[in-house]
Amino acid sequence: MARVKTDERIVVAMTELLRRQGYAATGIKQVVDAAGAPIGSIYHHFSGGKRDVAAAALRQSGAAYGELVGMLLAPHDDIAEGIEAAFVSAADTMADTGWLNMCPVATVAGEIADTEPALRTVAAEVIDAWVEQGTALYLSRGLTEPDAHALILAVVASLEGAFILARTQRSTAPVLAAGRAMGAYARALTAHPETSGSTTAAPA
Amino acid sequence: MARVKTDERIVVAMTELLRRQGYAATGIKQVVDAAGAPIGSIYHHFSGGKRDVAAAALRQSGAAYGELVGMLLAPHDDIAEGIEAAFVSAADTMADTGWLNMCPVATVAGEIADTEPALRTVAAEVIDAWVEQGTALYLSRGLTEPDAHALILAVVASLEGAFILARTQRSTAPVLAAGRAMGAYARALTAHPETSGSTTAAPA
Repeated sequence: MARVKTDERIVVAMTELLRRQGYAATGIKQVVDAAGAPIGSIYHHFSGGKRDVAAAALRQSGAAYGELVGMLLAPHDDIAEGIEAAFVSAADTMADTGWLNMCPVATVAGEIADTEPALRTVAAEVIDAWVEQGTALYLSRGLTEPDAHALILAVVASLEGAFILARTQRSTAPVLAAGRAMGAYARALTAHPETSGSTTAAPA
Repeated sequence: MARVKTDERIVVAMTELLRRQGYAATGIKQVVDAAGAPIGSIYHHFSGGKRDVAAAALRQSGAAYGELVGMLLAPHDDIAEGIEAAFVSAADTMADTGWLNMCPVATVAGEIADTEPALRTVAAEVIDAWVEQGTALYLSRGLTEPDAHALILAVVASLEGAFILARTQRSTAPVLAAGRAMGAYARALTAHPETSGSTTAAPA
């Protein structure tokens, strides 16, 4: 059996440590120990050290998570049903795994947004990619571009916030409540498109 | 002029450090330096050291933040208008302050939920208090208890997630999108109460 390459083992170890304890608490020695790699191999593969490994971990788990959510949403022709099913599935997974941090991208972004500009930019790129994929999906389901964009932004925001509440309260209730709210919003958009006054038209 | 007491200065310094850089990155020496307090004063006022100071900071900023959101929501007889106005106000404040972390409770909770059970419990109590206050407010505006509870849970989840996205992307768009989504959900609940299948009836 082929061995997993050292750089891949390092990124996986960093992802699991970011998920469990965040960026500041994670030392590079802990990452190489968890990866079963020599300390020197970090700088061979990642010249920027811990920050570079974390950037790779955020990119990789962001892409995987984007694919997972896309797979949950896509089979449903009805937008609202797809959203509700995705939130129910996320709630089940969290409860089954003992409140796994489903998405280290948002918790790490919340931790480092004011202190690590390079990692903040990586997290912003990951979120932009989710929003782009979600906008395309909802366009293909018949929403206008501004409504599709507004809906996926609201869905991502409420899913990420609900994950934090659920881990904190050890309860699926926030995720289920957020899913029903977003389902209701999707139904409102389908019934009454609100193309004017949309997010994309508003200045940042 | 009366001097601010040492223990209060320590809690304020911890709150600002939690807001900016999170729990693990904050050392107790940094807290006392920022508070202009001698290091020994920490253990005089907070026998549990850094963890106790952080717990006090989360409780205090949680209570202040709950009051602020209550003050933003309360003047509006129409639930949806109150929610939309609160999200717009939060978005303005973030942009005006250079993307201030509005609520350290959620970012710290996301960081420590799997590693600091005592602090996680404090954060859960803070969130429970917000949900209780919000449920009472929405009951007084005519929602059923299950709908009032489901709405405030979804509002808090989406606000917290939108804060993280906004700080990461340096854009008010996620907060404005989340506010419009929650306004639409509130309108749907007002028009068609969904008392059955509510959050409070679902097992955690």
